[in-house]
Amino acid sequence: MEKAEMRSLCETYISKGATAVPEHVSKQIVSGYGITVPEGSLVKTVAEAVEFAAGAGYPVVLKAVSSEMLHKTEQKGVVLNLGSEEALKKACEEMISVFSTRNEDIDGFLVEKMVQGGAEYIVGLQNDPCFGPVIMLGTGGVFIHLLDDVTFRVLPATREDIQEMIEEIKGKLLMRGFRGEPPLNEDVFVDAMLKIGRLGLDAAGLYESMDFNPVCLNTSAAIALDAKIILAKEPAETVISGVKASITGMANFFEPKNVALVGASTTPGKIGNAVADSLINHNFEGKVFPISRGRKKVFGLESYESLDEIPEKIDLAVVIVGLALVPELLDQCHTLGIPAMLIISGGGKELGGEQVELEKEIQRKSREYGIRVIGPNCIGCFSAQNRFDAFFQVHERMVRPKPGNISFITQSGTYGCSFLEECEKTGASKMISYGNRVDVDEADMIAYLAEDPDTRVIASYVEGLEDGRKFLRTAREVIASHKKPIVLYKSGRTQRSAQAAQSHTGAYGGSYGVYQGAFKQAGILPVDSYEELVAVSRALSMQPPAQGPGISMISNGAGPMVNAIDIFDRYDVEMAGILAESIQAMEAHYPAFYICKNPVDVTGSATSDDYHFAMECLDRDPNVHVIMNWFVFQDTPLDEKIVEVLEEMNRKSKKPILCAARGGAYTQHMSQAIEAIGVPVFDSAHLWIAAAGALVKWGAIQQST
Amino acid sequence: MEKAEMRSLCETYISKGATAVPEHVSKQIVSGYGITVPEGSLVKTVAEAVEFAAGAGYPVVLKAVSSEMLHKTEQKGVVLNLGSEEALKKACEEMISVFSTRNEDIDGFLVEKMVQGGAEYIVGLQNDPCFGPVIMLGTGGVFIHLLDDVTFRVLPATREDIQEMIEEIKGKLLMRGFRGEPPLNEDVFVDAMLKIGRLGLDAAGLYESMDFNPVCLNTSAAIALDAKIILAKEPAETVISGVKASITGMANFFEPKNVALVGASTTPGKIGNAVADSLINHNFEGKVFPISRGRKKVFGLESYESLDEIPEKIDLAVVIVGLALVPELLDQCHTLGIPAMLIISGGGKELGGEQVELEKEIQRKSREYGIRVIGPNCIGCFSAQNRFDAFFQVHERMVRPKPGNISFITQSGTYGCSFLEECEKTGASKMISYGNRVDVDEADMIAYLAEDPDTRVIASYVEGLEDGRKFLRTAREVIASHKKPIVLYKSGRTQRSAQAAQSHTGAYGGSYGVYQGAFKQAGILPVDSYEELVAVSRALSMQPPAQGPGISMISNGAGPMVNAIDIFDRYDVEMAGILAESIQAMEAHYPAFYICKNPVDVTGSATSDDYHFAMECLDRDPNVHVIMNWFVFQDTPLDEKIVEVLEEMNRKSKKPILCAARGGAYTQHMSQAIEAIGVPVFDSAHLWIAAAGALVKWGAIQQST
Repeated sequence: MEKAEMRSLCETYISKGATAVPEHVSKQIVSGYGITVPEGSLVKTVAEAVEFAAGAGYPVVLKAVSSEMLHKTEQKGVVLNLGSEEALKKACEEMISVFSTRNEDIDGFLVEKMVQGGAEYIVGLQNDPCFGPVIMLGTGGVFIHLLDDVTFRVLPATREDIQEMIEEIKGKLLMRGFRGEPPLNEDVFVDAMLKIGRLGLDAAGLYESMDFNPVCLNTSAAIALDAKIILAKEPAETVISGVKASITGMANFFEPKNVALVGASTTPGKIGNAVADSLINHNFEGKVFPISRGRKKVFGLESYESLDEIPEKIDLAVVIVGLALVPELLDQCHTLGIPAMLIISGGGKELGGEQVELEKEIQRKSREYGIRVIGPNCIGCFSAQNRFDAFFQVHERMVRPKPGNISFITQSGTYGCSFLEECEKTGASKMISYGNRVDVDEADMIAYLAEDPDTRVIASYVEGLEDGRKFLRTAREVIASHKKPIVLYKSGRTQRSAQAAQSHTGAYGGSYGVYQGAFKQAGILPVDSYEELVAVSRALSMQPPAQGPGISMISNGAGPMVNAIDIFDRYDVEMAGILAESIQAMEAHYPAFYICKNPVDVTGSATSDDYHFAMECLDRDPNVHVIMNWFVFQDTPLDEKIVEVLEEMNRKSKKPILCAARGGAYTQHMSQAIEAIGVPVFDSAHLWIAAAGALVKWGAIQQST
Repeated sequence: MEKAEMRSLCETYISKGATAVPEHVSKQIVSGYGITVPEGSLVKTVAEAVEFAAGAGYPVVLKAVSSEMLHKTEQKGVVLNLGSEEALKKACEEMISVFSTRNEDIDGFLVEKMVQGGAEYIVGLQNDPCFGPVIMLGTGGVFIHLLDDVTFRVLPATREDIQEMIEEIKGKLLMRGFRGEPPLNEDVFVDAMLKIGRLGLDAAGLYESMDFNPVCLNTSAAIALDAKIILAKEPAETVISGVKASITGMANFFEPKNVALVGASTTPGKIGNAVADSLINHNFEGKVFPISRGRKKVFGLESYESLDEIPEKIDLAVVIVGLALVPELLDQCHTLGIPAMLIISGGGKELGGEQVELEKEIQRKSREYGIRVIGPNCIGCFSAQNRFDAFFQVHERMVRPKPGNISFITQSGTYGCSFLEECEKTGASKMISYGNRVDVDEADMIAYLAEDPDTRVIASYVEGLEDGRKFLRTAREVIASHKKPIVLYKSGRTQRSAQAAQSHTGAYGGSYGVYQGAFKQAGILPVDSYEELVAVSRALSMQPPAQGPGISMISNGAGPMVNAIDIFDRYDVEMAGILAESIQAMEAHYPAFYICKNPVDVTGSATSDDYHFAMECLDRDPNVHVIMNWFVFQDTPLDEKIVEVLEEMNRKSKKPILCAARGGAYTQHMSQAIEAIGVPVFDSAHLWIAAAGALVKWGAIQQST
């Protein structure tokens, strides 16, 4: 079946108001795409059913045909494994009787030859609100809900994507010689999924979802025993977004020469005063033009009543007045040639009602005039190099970091604030809190940061993307061409928290499973908490990627090693099997009570020299890809020369070095001294391993692109 | 079948060197315990098989009988669903042929009537190395490995335990009207598990494990389709420990009047010097008697060459000399009537070899003399009230906390150090690092802390228990009678990390699933990381338990709310459905742009009065059980009167109040001010919710005991 024929068939059913395509038609469609279905026949009478079965051979499956019946099993519309004519007849009659009791029509029967043996999977297609057509694979049949063993990819999915999907489900075991059975035909299964993927793209806009459940895989074939196509309410043209990221004009947000502040205030405690303080009193390299009622001087600067009074060409308008005034301000910017606007004010779509319309008007004008807009409902941008920021968080309460190489884009201003402070000592480059993103979105920002020479790592906190494909395409390019890692914490993963996200920035939080698949396709490094986001970004910012998964650990305290090993699997890292010669070297060098294996337990007696010796051994050992030190700095024998030791090792080793320690003031003092020479120190086993996992994953991504 | 008969049957097979009981005998045993098995017969010939089937009716199941065959399915020793005489004969012949090809004997066939329909579970019994006989429930049949959906309890398990087990597995859905099927008979399933539990206790010491896989449950019966009894290598008497915790003499570790330090040193940097410094120079209320070679003065104190030179009666000997000297020291203590010894020195069983023997000798002498011993291989004890500690971590590197109400027992000295420092400002009562526990173990310690008036919360870090039943019994009593929560972080959960634990303190880390079940039975509050251990202990130490699962949140930043909601399920808490009148009160009071639902989003404009108003509403609202505030202290409008507001609310509200904030110096200053008035402040959404979850769980445990 060709694409055109399939689409016209679906469109016909949509125009008739059908929810789903009848199963026998679905089967024709999938069969037309080269996917195997059971031998079957659509019949109207019991006699016809018996005739088909006699020809095809027993056992057979009997299904009621009724376009509105979506759950055949629950609705007693399917009987499996009918072994004889007698059984088939009886099943037909019972089905007719059950349906008539419920006052439902049976349009006919689908009789199919029973497929036996093999393993059952579910393959699905879905029109995701954020990513458009996606494909799902799960371990299946009736136990799908119990197993919760599914994985997604955005279409088109490559052969490698499909193979990865299989690796991700537990049900792969069923394919690979389960309980003495011969291995099933994995190749034919991958082929079938690729064909289903093509159908998913060809039919884009016409369906909500398709379920192939089960697809039965045996040693020779993958057979779709059921095919359920749930139609879209009406055909849609735009489910596959082709929008490209645009960085036009974005430099104005980070390197503005002249900034207008619309809503400056002279009253301490007011937001308009706090923002003015941030812009005027803290070394920003550009010029600031406050706009305030009555032209009062703001922190000693001349102020203006409106944008058109300002004598110089403005690069960026920072807006903290009511959102209702913004459309007119955009008109003025257009007239005056002001290319960018940062709207800090809230009160947009997060409140619902007519505010949604107001925000749409702002979006329309931004697009019409080609004025780039960040916000509304955000805390704004920060650029460490020229000390630009327009935060209403005053410096007494929020420290701005020194210049560094991590940039952070965040849908949450709260996390924007804390991220800047986490980076106080190790530095940051840009931070962007973008709130309701009427114009500049995540894709535009990562495209901009890709070109930013001061950014090495892009960290991001996202509650929900609007145009998933735009982001995915851009991220893929940033990672492959610019070799910059993108670390992403997607929150709003449950339906309930997605609702909270909606009331926050009006964002839509789709299924996290779909996001996970998309992140893999792009090479994004996903994390599971804000703390992991910070830890992983800092590791990538300070250390090289790992050339393999082998972890080695050295510690003067064993407890955290035990915890760390517990979570190796979660972060896809492995205990390096260190060479016998490494072990022998350590045994020859250390006192008898040191434990010379991986992890190396240098005990409470360890000195910095002891750590140095073990690090040298592990640096030479080709099985080791990451060198990890835990320090109990509280232990008296561990001397402060450890900082020099780490500086030397960090300079000469090509392997990443990650440290960890937990404690009070002295421990924190030592940790900071180590971070100052470029080696990160984490304060939990969990974050330490999460960081290692990200360096391993980033190394693998680098090797594969 | 009576217990005596069953045991003698098993003993016979053990004495014959059998690995397992043949299936037909297993079936007799379980049937004798009142557990339903399929109608079946042990036959020697094909003709006998056919004869049985003719009488019982087809379809039947055919199983080869061979005592050494443990995996029938993989080994082609079972054929299901044989519908006719012809099929049965063929199956018999094929089986004979398959076995003869492999040169294996078939002792005969077990022919059983095929049981169809219903859902399949696995029920298992295991002789756990730590807890003795335990029972397991899982969703089963062949997919057990895929589903990974199992739960354990230590035997005896009550009816309520079994019902809880069912609630814990996903497979419960299959019992409760799955896909339109009628509900299955849950009561009969619980009865069957109770019977299996009784068998598990009666057969204690004779089996390694028993598998009932599957147990098929339908609307009327629970039928054990298979029963596999793997025998113990030899009968063991002691798998059910009856040992009781003993606190005799333990006060000497915490309130010693006279302490001897064996191994004091005058050389700075030496462990013997650091311990002397801790004991002598930091306000310990007792007297210290250093023992050192050459009788040098130690920090101005007279020293001695041996214990018998000391003129006063010693309560506690602290030992930091080589472990080989300890047996003789114990002899001396016995002669001198010294009742307790704290052995800090390592070099025991963690090194393996002859050190294991040395440690056993220490244990023997400790028992023989009735001298209580903590250690070896630990950092010792701390008592905040009288400032006793013998740490080799000097004060410059490790702060000792002020007196408080949390006590911490830990198998890891490393975490002991950091825990003390975490409690610096909020206080701790006792800390015990117990290392290789030759005498005093976890059960003894919690029994002691139960009686300690200064301990309100018992926090514990455990890599592996030695006598699980002793601990379980003691914990249950501490929780039920003394109403003191025990928070426990069990690490060493994977096989690999259990090995690391073994090389650490020689501990055995059994399956974490078994521990989880045991913790539930005792009412222990388990946590999943060291950070959670700290967070949960602090919450319990400062706030009352919650009277229900309803969480309410107030925040001036929404991002962390989204994260928090994502993990509600993991911590068994719920979003409180707050009353319409609460919402109306807030809507009437707040500006239009505040979002008046749960969570309450008071936006970046929030003042302390705004938080106060919301807290008052939520305190009045009966649906709210926990009041949780997140603070973005960086936001300028949030004034410092918030500390007073919280003090007032904390005084008058009966509900727990938990706060959170994350940021730099200013945020930390505010957090400490709030903690000083008794309200804990967490720095991550995860720990904030984990703390709430523990208060909810502790409330439920309190209500149920």
